[in-house]
Amino acid sequence: MNSNYKAFWLEGGDLVVIDQTQLPFRLVTKTLKNSADATLAIQDMTVRGAGGIGNVAAFGVYLAARESDGDLSKVKELAAVIRRARPTAVNLMWAVDRLLLVLEKAALTNQDLVTVALKEAIAIADEDVIGTRQIGKFGCELIEAIAKTKPQGEPVNILTHCNAGWLAIVDRGSALAPIYEASDRGINIHVWVDETRPRNQGANLTAWELGQSQIPHTLITDNAGGLLMQYGKVDLCIVGTDRVTRKGDVANKIGTYLKALAAFDNQVPFYVALPSSTFDMQIADGIQEIAIESRSADEVLYMQGLQNDQSIGRVRIAPLNTPALNYGFDITPARLVTGLITERGICEASELAIATMFMDLLPL
Amino acid sequence: MNSNYKAFWLEGGDLVVIDQTQLPFRLVTKTLKNSADATLAIQDMTVRGAGGIGNVAAFGVYLAARESDGDLSKVKELAAVIRRARPTAVNLMWAVDRLLLVLEKAALTNQDLVTVALKEAIAIADEDVIGTRQIGKFGCELIEAIAKTKPQGEPVNILTHCNAGWLAIVDRGSALAPIYEASDRGINIHVWVDETRPRNQGANLTAWELGQSQIPHTLITDNAGGLLMQYGKVDLCIVGTDRVTRKGDVANKIGTYLKALAAFDNQVPFYVALPSSTFDMQIADGIQEIAIESRSADEVLYMQGLQNDQSIGRVRIAPLNTPALNYGFDITPARLVTGLITERGICEASELAIATMFMDLLPL
Repeated sequence: MNSNYKAFWLEGGDLVVIDQTQLPFRLVTKTLKNSADATLAIQDMTVRGAGGIGNVAAFGVYLAARESDGDLSKVKELAAVIRRARPTAVNLMWAVDRLLLVLEKAALTNQDLVTVALKEAIAIADEDVIGTRQIGKFGCELIEAIAKTKPQGEPVNILTHCNAGWLAIVDRGSALAPIYEASDRGINIHVWVDETRPRNQGANLTAWELGQSQIPHTLITDNAGGLLMQYGKVDLCIVGTDRVTRKGDVANKIGTYLKALAAFDNQVPFYVALPSSTFDMQIADGIQEIAIESRSADEVLYMQGLQNDQSIGRVRIAPLNTPALNYGFDITPARLVTGLITERGICEASELAIATMFMDLLPL
Repeated sequence: MNSNYKAFWLEGGDLVVIDQTQLPFRLVTKTLKNSADATLAIQDMTVRGAGGIGNVAAFGVYLAARESDGDLSKVKELAAVIRRARPTAVNLMWAVDRLLLVLEKAALTNQDLVTVALKEAIAIADEDVIGTRQIGKFGCELIEAIAKTKPQGEPVNILTHCNAGWLAIVDRGSALAPIYEASDRGINIHVWVDETRPRNQGANLTAWELGQSQIPHTLITDNAGGLLMQYGKVDLCIVGTDRVTRKGDVANKIGTYLKALAAFDNQVPFYVALPSSTFDMQIADGIQEIAIESRSADEVLYMQGLQNDQSIGRVRIAPLNTPALNYGFDITPARLVTGLITERGICEASELAIATMFMDLLPL
């Protein structure tokens, strides 16, 4: 297993993950010992991010195999539960299906399912590592080109929403991979971090990641990006995604669509970074065909953070009888996306361009 | 003084205001005894909303007169401090200037400045009451027209941002005035309430106001409105404003522009409600000419709410060394505004239409 993994790793055959619900205040881990642990970790957002969900799902199938004593039908049963843990990120379904396909073949030749599952889960994570490095390189070229147009000493200002860094996908993230690469190359950059209500992955995770790497950044409310673009303070937007249709519609954390509209209105390039496992070639129209997760109203009604006594707690921000609705994602139509930054290169967000670059991923 | 005022009233010559920083958890008041109290109440958002700021500024000049023992130059000095309390809402400058103009005339004829100032401050508040009732009637016609197109039993879904209810402007609000009127007329309505980070005026104030009046509503994150419009779940947006240029550009709470973009993209009508005192006919271009207030980074880094022990407290939502930026308002260009709901009627957001309906307000 690649030594660069930071968000999860194997220990004594179990999967250890950073508990992202405790960040940035506590860096603690959880040990996932069986497939139910993996499902719960995905559901309660101990792990999150399209890639991270896929990885934990894949290792979850390995844990399922370990519980199933060579019985493929039992593995399938447990895997089906993992597969339903969250509805929007296609990497979850993709990873489970990939593991089951390999296990079905392995069962035909009486191979050890546990060994085969573990190998395939590691292979996915290793591919992610290589993929995020490639995404970083392709995306960094965009940043570098903008840097050349900037007056001496002025940073390239990049806005991102939610967290699509190494906590979301090993080992460089998708949206943050070009930012890490630009930082490595000494390009003068500054990142606007959307706080990303309701779960605050920007304030909690992206701000923490960038702080760890000493990359200049400023936290803003989700409401602020439009004005910053009106003021010419954003050169480039890069976000991650949970699912991209074959026509280039992008499902990502709720609020992404609003930033894409503002970017379009202010001629700011808007890029979406993803490994090709995030394409869902089965579907075309994002608004019609992607299931958007509804989560608990409490995520809207309460806000978690560090209390005065340094414990993690929450405050209620609305009257006691106020109802709330909490969709987790929205759809950014392809027409608002300047390009898709993938491990194969930068691809226009159109059916033709996607089909050309990712022909092997199209359904038969 | 009109008995319908709810957000402030006179008591023994002092101005009593609801402390809006304590809502929705505590309904407590503050007594403003001098002009410095009035300035502070505006600055620390004890009172807020374009109209409310104007009213407290006007009564603040009255309090200044009370402190000045008939000395107009001292009143002017104290009034200048009030006038600088916050930069964006033009009602503040408008109210102070109106009071000073009246006081200058009164001084020429040796009238009692305190009496004259009090009378004028009350006149402004009384005009606001009549104005918000008119705004309610004109805006309600829009709601009524949509209601007629709805299938039996389905509400008209209205999205609003921040708080522009009776807490913001006596005694019906601007954006909420049509909603209160529609509720009075028995129209089936439902309000989507943007929480409105960073100060949460939606979650804290609008949800509370609507709850007090039993108007059906649902709290959403600021990120959610785009998806709701994509899903056809918003029939109409109505927001308030802090300043409108003579060309119809609208300054309002940060994030308003993003909702206007989404409304435009989904063919949802986007209306801005205002008393005519919110026009700033001196300026044309909102982005170039309106000063946008920057407030404390702590408003982004911390979230206030009700703690487990029922006290009001705050939690920190970002790493300890994270910097934050906190612009308070943004600009919605006139091209995204379907219409302006004013006390004189509904006006197109264009220079010609505004000049036609509000010719008397144009600079000489």
